[in-house]
This record gives sequence, structure tokens and C-alpha cells, in this order.
Amino acid sequence: MPGTFSVGLLGHGTVGSAFATLLQQRADSIVPITGLRPQVSGVLTRSRGSFDEILAGSDLIVELIGGVEPARDYVLRAMRAGRHVVSANKLLLSQHGEELWACAREHGVQLRFEAAVAGVVPVIRVLQESLAAAHVERIHGIVNGTTNYILTEMARGGLSYAEALEQAQQLGYAEADPSDDVSGRDAAAKMAILARLAFDTPVHLDQVRYEGIEQLTPDDIAYAQQLGLGLKLIGTAERVDGGLSVRVHPAFLYGGHPLASVHGPFNAVTVESGAITEITMSGPGAGGPQTASAVLGDVISAMIPPATTAETSQRLEIVNDVDSAFYLHMEVADRPGVLAQVAELLGMQGASIKSVVQRGLGDNASLVMVLHPLRESRFYAAVRLIGQLDFMRSAPRAIRVIEEEFT
Amino acid sequence: MPGTFSVGLLGHGTVGSAFATLLQQRADSIVPITGLRPQVSGVLTRSRGSFDEILAGSDLIVELIGGVEPARDYVLRAMRAGRHVVSANKLLLSQHGEELWACAREHGVQLRFEAAVAGVVPVIRVLQESLAAAHVERIHGIVNGTTNYILTEMARGGLSYAEALEQAQQLGYAEADPSDDVSGRDAAAKMAILARLAFDTPVHLDQVRYEGIEQLTPDDIAYAQQLGLGLKLIGTAERVDGGLSVRVHPAFLYGGHPLASVHGPFNAVTVESGAITEITMSGPGAGGPQTASAVLGDVISAMIPPATTAETSQRLEIVNDVDSAFYLHMEVADRPGVLAQVAELLGMQGASIKSVVQRGLGDNASLVMVLHPLRESRFYAAVRLIGQLDFMRSAPRAIRVIEEEFT
Repeated sequence: MPGTFSVGLLGHGTVGSAFATLLQQRADSIVPITGLRPQVSGVLTRSRGSFDEILAGSDLIVELIGGVEPARDYVLRAMRAGRHVVSANKLLLSQHGEELWACAREHGVQLRFEAAVAGVVPVIRVLQESLAAAHVERIHGIVNGTTNYILTEMARGGLSYAEALEQAQQLGYAEADPSDDVSGRDAAAKMAILARLAFDTPVHLDQVRYEGIEQLTPDDIAYAQQLGLGLKLIGTAERVDGGLSVRVHPAFLYGGHPLASVHGPFNAVTVESGAITEITMSGPGAGGPQTASAVLGDVISAMIPPATTAETSQRLEIVNDVDSAFYLHMEVADRPGVLAQVAELLGMQGASIKSVVQRGLGDNASLVMVLHPLRESRFYAAVRLIGQLDFMRSAPRAIRVIEEEFT
Repeated sequence: MPGTFSVGLLGHGTVGSAFATLLQQRADSIVPITGLRPQVSGVLTRSRGSFDEILAGSDLIVELIGGVEPARDYVLRAMRAGRHVVSANKLLLSQHGEELWACAREHGVQLRFEAAVAGVVPVIRVLQESLAAAHVERIHGIVNGTTNYILTEMARGGLSYAEALEQAQQLGYAEADPSDDVSGRDAAAKMAILARLAFDTPVHLDQVRYEGIEQLTPDDIAYAQQLGLGLKLIGTAERVDGGLSVRVHPAFLYGGHPLASVHGPFNAVTVESGAITEITMSGPGAGGPQTASAVLGDVISAMIPPATTAETSQRLEIVNDVDSAFYLHMEVADRPGVLAQVAELLGMQGASIKSVVQRGLGDNASLVMVLHPLRESRFYAAVRLIGQLDFMRSAPRAIRVIEEEFT
């Protein structure tokens, strides 16, 4: 029987309840990694629970209340009592980070906060660990999903700012009072935290200049598209003349920029440094289960000593025949019935044609198709038979197609 | 005076010598993080150095020899002697990983290997730590920079496979004998390691099916572009019918796929899981300084207990006036001299025009330009004066442009 690791949970909103559910779902798989079974030992909400009782019964505190007080007080008291703390609170860390980190060092506990910036995108861990000694030159980030969703819809559908905001509110991507997001202040808090970690210098939210997206028009986006530019709300932290600039504002990006293809509610961060060139990380910036996953990753890290690779606990069968979509290129004689015969052989194996391009005439005729996914063994059986048809001028060529379209 | 942390270095090729240089450059900045000053205490090459002497004088061994033997023997002997090991050796780990990880657990030492897969892209750390308890459904990866460079050039320039390979060799992106890369075997070794970590099940290189890129033609790429598809060498590891499929083969991707925009020698990995949706990480997959940075991140992690946020060691000035490129949108009266007057005011502040779009006539005339970077205070000074010109029909609108084009 593994021992129990008790997690006290402060806050039970979208992320808090998703975290409680995820912890229960994944508890079995955490035992082989940590030797302990984590469980939520108490939950504090506005209307119920006692912080002191929860603290007394916990090995670690997860703070998902948000806002500065009473979150700050709880986090400090937990660390002074020797508890590790995991927090998703960007406002707290961007204004009182130095006090909290000093308290963690003083009491020899961990304060982890991956979920405070860019949700499940592991930018905090990468900055603190992988890039601990990198001399970072610049960070660019799309760190607010609400505004990225609004700008994506303005660009895609020609919506006005007001229309796109209303749509985001209907879909739950924007709050009823969206001002923290659309003003750039939420992104500014996140950039303050990233800048502190990347440049090893104190950065307070009040030192971050920010501009929002309220003034942008579809007209600007349309003109910019003519110039090959896409519009994003970009956070920047970069070395300038021996100092540091940290700012958030709308900016146009050329199509080849790694952040240009980050659409909808996704977040992404690019870190540039001489030795590493650049790293980009992207993923969902918000959402209950996603943010809860980031919190859980922090909880597990606090439970264990640093990476040893655990013994495998699974013995999965290695599968060799899978379903794939295919591109199929055939050089054929230009005569009637070619497409019908190819289609018949494919159909006998259950293949279904998604799109066809026919090109050329006479000696250069070719037939190119993309097929819906089917078992690879069945596809190749059809290709062997197709290769024997008398009108084939060379062996058919097949290349797999990865189907999902991310939008 | 901080104590010394002695690093024994096995191998002194491109990555080994870049690591030795980087360690020396960054040693001062590692002291505040770890309390210790790291230094290379000995180097083993084919022609000089004694492994036993280097081991005796080291706190940690960095293995950059490559290949299976004698690397396997050295790594095992180092761990049995109680030393942490950092390795970039994908062939070794994909064939003897279980033996090595078991040895590390048995002797209570760390075996870290971020640089073995996707260079400085922190996919190993993210899988082992951030996603330790995630139920991963699928990994897609572009994990070989040589083949991605070749395919990028075939798509961009219409080069044949042979021409693109020769170009890659001239630029140092492909070796004189490129067979491990172009056959898909190098990518297969990396996918074996990723699959082992993500799915918590033993995976040996021999269990990974792989196909290379030697048979691909510019013709295939041209047809596929008509169908909206781009061609990549893709590694896949995914759950299939309760088992696991691990494979490497060329595949077409739709333009919206997060891996579709990964060009040239870059690597990228996408991890999909129910709770996290998906995370994508990208960056340089090879290169001496980049790979050395990944090795250094591992060395630092082995030197310290898990993340506490260190006290800041810098006091950078927060800079508010920076250089930016701008998009400037002006609604103007349709009369002679408008562009000249605007250009004069911009020129007085040192602004230089990169591109201009004029549109409309009469009451709807507008003038849109993109400017080269200049100090923001000077730009806004010009905009204030432009706003006072009598032919302006409304206040000019300015939005920053992020200039770099990544190709």
C-alpha cells in the first residue's frame, strides 16, 4: 500500500474543480512515479472550509483562488508552515513575486506556478530549468487566449471588434467583464513573470507598458493582409541598451514568424538566445482541464526528487498495421476506363476517395488521389493489384497524409 | 568562494567542443543558481585521456561520443561509481535504455538526455516532468533536421532529392554518408525514446518501422501543393487498439497542422492528450551550440534540487522607449501633395518608409504605410504633427510591426 500525499485545494471554480477531477483520475498512474497516492484532503471555497484545518491536514497547498488577497496571505502562511505551494495566480506573482519566492527559499519549500502563464504550455519550467543558464535575448509571447481568439475571428470573418468580442463571450472565451483581457493587463502580468525568470531581474506588473485591442478595426487587418502581415496581441521582453523592455501591444507579424500561425484561444511563447537560436512552445492557454494539467504537473514535481526515469509500468503491444490516409500517384495511359478500374480495386479493399487530380494527356497522363484513412495492409494490397493493370506506365507511388486540420 | 563542480567530458567533436566553450562562458551565471562553479575537469577523445582518471576527478560525466560501444560501457561504469550522467546518445538510449535507466535507479544517480532528441527543444523534460501523469494519446514529431531541410528545399526550389541532398551536404546539414538520416533510422531512434517516456512502456529501436525520403520526387510535392498539402518526414507514436504504434515515414500535412510550418533544419514535436489538448514545441534540432545548450541545461538540473526560484542577481533598468517598426493608417483628403507632406514629417524624425498602399478616391482616400524601425518617441512625435495636417480626415492609426521574417 503506497502512502498518501495530501493536497489542500484553495478555490473550486472552473480550474479547481477540473483539478480535483483530474487528480482522482490520474492518482493510480502517479503512484509508480512518486511512490505516493495523491488525494485532495480539503477544499476551501468562499462559503465553506477552514484554511487552518486544510493546512494542518495537507502536504501541499494548491492555490486557485486568484486575485491578490486573501491568496497572498494563504500562500505565505502555507510556506511558513513548511508546505510546498502550487499556484496559477498571475496577478499575485506579478506583484508580490519577490516576497513569495524569498519566503519559499527561506523555508526550503517549492513554489511552482506553471499554470500562471500560458496554461499547459510549459514555459515556466523550460525557463527555470532547461534555460536556467541561457543568456536570453528576447521573449515574444501570445499569452492571452481571449484576445487571440478575437483577433483570429476579426481576420477570418471580417468581424468588428465588438462582434468578435460578443462571439467570444458566447463561447466562453471571454468573461462578461473582459477589460482585464482586452486592455492587455492580463498579458502584462504574464510578461512580468516571464521577464523575471528569463532575465533574472525583478519585474513588477506596474513596470510593464501595455496597450489593448479595443481600438483595432477590420480595416487595419485587411490592409495588413495585403502587405503579408497578420495581427496579434504580442508581449515582448527584450534586452535594450543594457536594460530591459517589457511591453504588450498589438503588432503585425510577417507570415513566416513562428507566432503568426497561432490561432484562436491558443497561446505561444518564443525564447531567443544566442546559443539556442530560438525555441517556440504553443498550446491551449486556458480551459479548466488544460490549466488543471499544468497544476498537476507541478504537484507531481513537488512530490518527487528530480528526474530519474521510472521503471515502465506498461507492457503495450507494438502495433504494426494502422489506419492511414494516403496520397496515391499513378502514371497511366490516356484511355477510357482507367479511373473506373483503379476505383474498383480500391473499393474492394474498402478505400474511399477524398479528392482526385487528373493531369496531362497521351504519354504524360497521370492520376493523383487522396484517400480517406484505411488499414495500411488493405491499402497496399490494392496498390499491388493496381500496379499490375496494363495501363500503368510505372509503379504507383504512395505517401501517407496526416488528416487533422487544426483551425 | 563557491565550490567547484567537476564535469568529465567524453567526446570532443562539434557538440563536445561547443559544450566546453559554453560551460566556460556561462560558469559565472551558474554560481548563483547552484552555489557551485562548474568546470571541465578532463576530456576523453579517441587519441588522448584516460576514462578512469576522468571518472575519478568528476562529479558528473557528459557523454558525447555517440554510438553504442564504448559509450554504453562508460555510462554504466560512471553510474555504478555514483556519478550523474548527461548524454546526447540516441542510438544508445533507443537500444539499451532500460538497462541504463535501471542502473541509474539502482545507484540513485540521474541520467539525463535532453539533447538526444530534437536538440534544444525541451521535449524530454516536458514529457518526464510537466506531463509525467498525462495520459498521452499521440506524439507527432519532425525529429530529423537533415531530412526536413531537404524536403523544405525540394518544396521551395523544386529541387530533386539528389540536388537538395547535395546542397544540405555543402551547408553542413547532412553528413558525407547521409544514410542514417535519409533512411529514417535516426528519427526512428528518437521516436523510440519519446514513445518510451510518453507511454511508459519499453520500446526498442528495432520495434520502430521506418521509411526514408530517398524515393520522393518534386512531382509529388507539386501535386500535393495543389491539394493544400506539405510534405514532411513525420515520426508518430500513438495508441492503437490498446497497443502502441511507433513509426517514421514521409507524410503530407494540411497547412493548418502545427508541424506544417516547421521549415529547414528545425525540429518540432506535438503531444496530444485528452486533458491538455495538444502542446507543440519547436526549435533548432541540431547544431553544436544548440545541442550544447541542451546538455548544459541537464548538467545544471543535475547540480541542484528541484526548482526554487533563485534570488535575482541582476538589477536591469526597465526601458520604456524602444525601436519599433510601424504600420500607419491615414484617412486623407484626395488632393496633391498629401504623400509628400506626410513623408516630410516622418523624415524629420528619421523614419524611413518600407512600403505604401494608397487606396480610394475622393472622400474615401486612404494612405497606409509600413515604416522601418525607429525610436517610438520619435515616431509618435511625427504622428502628432501628421494628425494636425489639414487634409487628415481622422486621427492616424499606428500599429507596431514585428520585423523578422523566419524562413
